[in-house]
Amino acid sequence: MPALKGAPFLRELEAALEAIEGLRRNGARVHCITNTVAQNYTANLLLACGAAPSMTASADEAPFFTERAGSLLVNLGTLDGERREAIRASVVLAGRNAIPFVLDPVMAHVSPPRLEFAGEIAASAPAILRGNVNEIGALIASGRLASQTCVVRTGATDEIHANGRTLRIQNGHPMLARVIATGCAQGALMAALLAHAEEPLIAALAALLWMGVSGEIAAQACDGPGSFSWLLIDTLAGISPETIRTMARVT
Amino acid sequence: MPALKGAPFLRELEAALEAIEGLRRNGARVHCITNTVAQNYTANLLLACGAAPSMTASADEAPFFTERAGSLLVNLGTLDGERREAIRASVVLAGRNAIPFVLDPVMAHVSPPRLEFAGEIAASAPAILRGNVNEIGALIASGRLASQTCVVRTGATDEIHANGRTLRIQNGHPMLARVIATGCAQGALMAALLAHAEEPLIAALAALLWMGVSGEIAAQACDGPGSFSWLLIDTLAGISPETIRTMARVT
Amino acid sequence: MPALKGAPFLRELEAALEAIEGLRRNGARVHCITNTVAQNYTANLLLACGAAPSMTASADEAPFFTERAGSLLVNLGTLDGERREAIRASVVLAGRNAIPFVLDPVMAHVSPPRLEFAGEIAASAPAILRGNVNEIGALIASGRLASQTCVVRTGATDEIHANGRTLRIQNGHPMLARVIATGCAQGALMAALLAHAEEPLIAALAALLWMGVSGEIAAQACDGPGSFSWLLIDTLAGISPETIRTMARVT
Repeated sequence: MPALKGAPFLRELEAALEAIEGLRRNGARVHCITNTVAQNYTANLLLACGAAPSMTASADEAPFFTERAGSLLVNLGTLDGERREAIRASVVLAGRNAIPFVLDPVMAHVSPPRLEFAGEIAASAPAILRGNVNEIGALIASGRLASQTCVVRTGATDEIHANGRTLRIQNGHPMLARVIATGCAQGALMAALLAHAEEPLIAALAALLWMGVSGEIAAQACDGPGSFSWLLIDTLAGISPETIRTMARVT
Repeated sequence: MPALKGAPFLRELEAALEAIEGLRRNGARVHCITNTVAQNYTANLLLACGAAPSMTASADEAPFFTERAGSLLVNLGTLDGERREAIRASVVLAGRNAIPFVLDPVMAHVSPPRLEFAGEIAASAPAILRGNVNEIGALIASGRLASQTCVVRTGATDEIHANGRTLRIQNGHPMLARVIATGCAQGALMAALLAHAEEPLIAALAALLWMGVSGEIAAQACDGPGSFSWLLIDTLAGISPETIRTMARVT
Repeated sequence: MPALKGAPFLRELEAALEAIEGLRRNGARVHCITNTVAQNYTANLLLACGAAPSMTASADEAPFFTERAGSLLVNLGTLDGERREAIRASVVLAGRNAIPFVLDPVMAHVSPPRLEFAGEIAASAPAILRGNVNEIGALIASGRLASQTCVVRTGATDEIHANGRTLRIQNGHPMLARVIATGCAQGALMAALLAHAEEPLIAALAALLWMGVSGEIAAQACDGPGSFSWLLIDTLAGISPETIRTMARVT
């Protein structure tokens, strides 16, 4: 029995499920400039969800991959000079070709040069900005975030803010925080879903529900964070839209 | 019952099984200059198969590791300036010391500077060139591939071309494409097997059969791409030559 | 029945178990400048043990992460120019802020420039130097190792040398050597435990026992190196101090 019958955001929930089905059916090329810790898990999670990742992070090559992708992930973990130039070049090219991108300003509140760079990229109108309360807070305080960007603030309750609307998602499990790169991979999944969603809010909602519900199921089946890691991938690959609909908690 | 009784390439099949046993028994040092997405899985797959990997990718250090290795893998994923210089220095040193190398020109058809660099390295006579139809096609079109190189074109049917012979291998499973870096790791396994094979064709055949048959077995046992990933490693480590012989499909 | 009743180093064993419990209860921020092959597994192992890792390896950003960490890991695998500068800057900052660090001179005996750099860092008084017989031997021969450093020499029997004492630990399993990065992750775990140990010897002992005993248990349950990899993580997360005490073999 759908938990959301008569609930708010029923239309958004159905659109999110359609985006998930669209990605599974038709795929999506995503270029990910992401940190070296998260690259492998991010690629595996995207493959499990139907997307085709590329990961080159050098300035002279990344634009060629961005150009043929449907969307772009910019994740600022393990940032260095090479990555900065690759991101700049790819974001310019994405803007020119109307390729939407997700910005994940990992730990930008910790490192002043990273926050400065995150502000520069946030001004280029990412479709989605994804981060925790510290990261999002630092970016907003910088005053450089484009106003049209959909903002996803992750936490015990995830929040999506877009076009004056706020959605709160209460799915997920603490085990997700005991495996590295689940958050980074979630940003990549949002990017993949942009190709199949009518608006960024729907892509963000789809990724939060898909990973949140799958995380709850994998947590029940696992014996610890090691088995949770691959059970999450198996669950993402196999979960039905009906299960996501039934377990979704959106307010 | 051996599927190949009376079949062509029976001698090559037996030689491939001997190369596998040789690697398991005596090991092999392989220096891998490979992309950051694939490094961890490649290293684990090599360890499971009996090889000892090293992975340093800086120009000032890679040659010291290449020098003591039995073979070299050059994989062009996540290419950057540092990797290019490390590859150049290592390939020169490999040539000087008669250390054979495998070239995997990942996505060279997508990025013009990568294709240019792939052509430069292909001219240095890799023992094996491994890639999909797009990658191999672009390299051959460049006209810079050394004529003696054994060419492995992967796909639904894998093909090996060497010394006027063509072998077709029909093992494998679609699940192999749903885990990142299985192809990259296969190139590394070919490099490891070069140390125990009389000619590159045998090393290529051994790697394709070992991974293809193991992939078929792991796919039967898995619940999705997450469990497939580690089941493939377990299967590679434990599979008997008899099982590979029985399940091999070479024409 | 505790194997160590009446045995030497009973006090050290109890202190090691307390350090493990302290890390689980109160956590620890560890900044890891480590090789790209080991980053993901190291981060997952630290999370499973209660620590919070960061991994940035660029010279302009690493110091900001080191500054807020309780300890630092310096691992010399996949060393390059950027990593060298990041390590130099972080070690200076660690010294200034009394943040202890672990040095793991991976393969320093193979590459002369790496050995030279390892000597430079070893002179900055790491709390712990961890390596195998070749790595430790090369460092000691360089004559640049600070005298107060606790030296951990890994092998079939692990040895800890500190303040004139020598402890020998005979836990562990050959399967640990068939998964890449277990050694690198062990160095990171020593760094995490420094925050909860009265002296480096206790942190080293705690890490060796925690991983050694967990490795023995995981090896019994696994079907190969693929399943061993995640079973080790699950076991580290779930193992009780009593089990470690019972199975510990320290002389």
